[in-house]
Amino acid sequence: MELSIDEIKKVHSKSIGKLSINSTVKIDSKEVLSKVYTPGVAQISNLISEDESLAKQFTIAGKMVAVISDGSAVLGLGNIGAKGALPVMEGKCAIFKEFAGVDAFPICLATQDTEEIISTIKAISPNFAAINLEDISAPRCFEIEERLSKELQIPVMHDDQHGTAIVTLAALKSALRLVPKEKVNIVISGAGAAGSAITKLLLTTKTILDLKISQIKVLDSKGVVTTSRDDIKEDDPKTKDKYHLAQITKQSVNQSMSEALIGADVFIGVSAPEILSSEMVKSMNLDPIIFALANPVPEIMPAIAYSAGASIVATGRSDFPNQINNALAYPGVFKGLIQNGIRVVTDEIKLKAAENIFKYHLESGALSADNILPSILDKEVPKLIANSI
Amino acid sequence: MELSIDEIKKVHSKSIGKLSINSTVKIDSKEVLSKVYTPGVAQISNLISEDESLAKQFTIAGKMVAVISDGSAVLGLGNIGAKGALPVMEGKCAIFKEFAGVDAFPICLATQDTEEIISTIKAISPNFAAINLEDISAPRCFEIEERLSKELQIPVMHDDQHGTAIVTLAALKSALRLVPKEKVNIVISGAGAAGSAITKLLLTTKTILDLKISQIKVLDSKGVVTTSRDDIKEDDPKTKDKYHLAQITKQSVNQSMSEALIGADVFIGVSAPEILSSEMVKSMNLDPIIFALANPVPEIMPAIAYSAGASIVATGRSDFPNQINNALAYPGVFKGLIQNGIRVVTDEIKLKAAENIFKYHLESGALSADNILPSILDKEVPKLIANSI
Repeated sequence: MELSIDEIKKVHSKSIGKLSINSTVKIDSKEVLSKVYTPGVAQISNLISEDESLAKQFTIAGKMVAVISDGSAVLGLGNIGAKGALPVMEGKCAIFKEFAGVDAFPICLATQDTEEIISTIKAISPNFAAINLEDISAPRCFEIEERLSKELQIPVMHDDQHGTAIVTLAALKSALRLVPKEKVNIVISGAGAAGSAITKLLLTTKTILDLKISQIKVLDSKGVVTTSRDDIKEDDPKTKDKYHLAQITKQSVNQSMSEALIGADVFIGVSAPEILSSEMVKSMNLDPIIFALANPVPEIMPAIAYSAGASIVATGRSDFPNQINNALAYPGVFKGLIQNGIRVVTDEIKLKAAENIFKYHLESGALSADNILPSILDKEVPKLIANSI
Repeated sequence: MELSIDEIKKVHSKSIGKLSINSTVKIDSKEVLSKVYTPGVAQISNLISEDESLAKQFTIAGKMVAVISDGSAVLGLGNIGAKGALPVMEGKCAIFKEFAGVDAFPICLATQDTEEIISTIKAISPNFAAINLEDISAPRCFEIEERLSKELQIPVMHDDQHGTAIVTLAALKSALRLVPKEKVNIVISGAGAAGSAITKLLLTTKTILDLKISQIKVLDSKGVVTTSRDDIKEDDPKTKDKYHLAQITKQSVNQSMSEALIGADVFIGVSAPEILSSEMVKSMNLDPIIFALANPVPEIMPAIAYSAGASIVATGRSDFPNQINNALAYPGVFKGLIQNGIRVVTDEIKLKAAENIFKYHLESGALSADNILPSILDKEVPKLIANSI
């Protein structure tokens, strides 16, 4: 599918951006105006000022998701700042509404300072029912999510971590159903937000869902993340999260990506364009599963992966088959968090979401090697996720 | 008109609040999804990250108004906090869209600290084309507006000051057309955001539009604001704005409200419920003009003012004739600021807006003692304001 830049520009400029705000009440008489505005609105304000919990019932604070980014890790584009990130966050909000009926508003921040991000989000939190953090670079994203989850009374989820992990797990379950393996040796390229969350969720799964995972190696640009690397220290704030990853994956032997991939069954890339070569795929076990999720240019182009022997290839893009994109999960997850009054996004919630996406697709009879997930366009998916958590 | 609390509750709870966010693009195919989201959106993000000014064309930053309050001075309800303020700000956003086609989103802040308010608004500013400050108490509102106007590249206007001043001036011109006076002696009750801005705009008008204003006295709860009062000091941050008001109105003689009103032609109240008595109105000059704008309960009920001899009475309420409410001005002013690429709200802009509201109403032939302003529901008003500034 060819995407013309002129058409893309037109979609973005026609209405100046991709979102509009509408009144849910048609204000066509003084009587209606008196209800939605002064003097009638004062009665609602008084009720809420006496009992803040009523804001959930009478204001957008009962339904509105804030989609918040500092523009530091946008798609595969990197640190492009607040205004550069805005079209992406608008797209996410448009998806929220179109696919799950969830109202969401984008907030791109003019700061990349952890403390300023936290205090800004706390200051604007009264307007929202949930906070969807997006495209904030690691390791700051971990602290920001953790602190806000503790300090706010509404659910906070960093989608690049958990949305991606949920959809990747669902896709992996589908792939392993099609290409069953005795034991699953997994290499994850990318030790940032997504790589870290996928690793943690897969390790939880190992215990809970019995995926027969024998080993997970997580790699950053310098190779396997291990407890013996000189540049990864337990007591350095910048690398302590990587040290923790090395500990939970029990990796102590330093290896390059080529070395790590020998004999692997699954490659999951959430890292950089075109870093997986045909030779590396050939060095993996028979019928390897390749999830090359770097956006917009994947770690390996699907045609190359297939020629090198891959059994199933997925990417993050809408214009290839097998799209693994958090857009399949986050609309339903947030819909469920809000409708079920859930304050904390637990591992159990993520596992349920993944399991239900997989089951739904399996039961639909559509599961095949070039169709391992339901379509992002399938509006049943957000509903079933929301109802399952 | 009776307002039933059940009906008001229903209007607010039916859709959970009064605003919805919608996608301006129907996402019904993978092709459309590829344009509004990955991979197509990356091209727009790249363009903007290279030239931030393109955000105006391709994102909501080219049209979206932020309606921001800290909940410290809401309607006549006072300091009811962020969540209490939210229904009012939502109402303002609904009016923006319904009457002027302007997209606006409410942000109620969980802080009332001046520095935190300023830094929060700066941090979220990349998403917006203009900042509409609302219901922030004096004197903090002056510093917040001034600092943000200087430090941001988008227009910032505190509506309680300038929106109210514009509509009050338009109404006063109408009233004086109906009840001409040789010289106009004005008493303004309220030395906060609205009272201060009305005073300043009237003083500008005195020079520019020749309203024949002979004197303006501004009062707070302790009487006329003068340079000789012990509790008003030029060097005290809390009272310096009042000292400045005393200077520009040239008031040095301390008086109570009863004393100040003797022989006055116009009373403008932006203060507190039922503080203007029948006796005070009787002490004014013949055919006094009474604008009792405290919300939701005015300084004097219209029936009482009329029995005491008032020629024209206006309030801030939608359910009485002669509503003086900033909702007549702000949608058009912001529409104009954005469509004309104006960065600073000057006195000239405010005067033009007031003059054009007055002229439009005069020329419509509808001007009468109980109809001194166009209806808030008249969608021509925002258009003509926007086109005139």
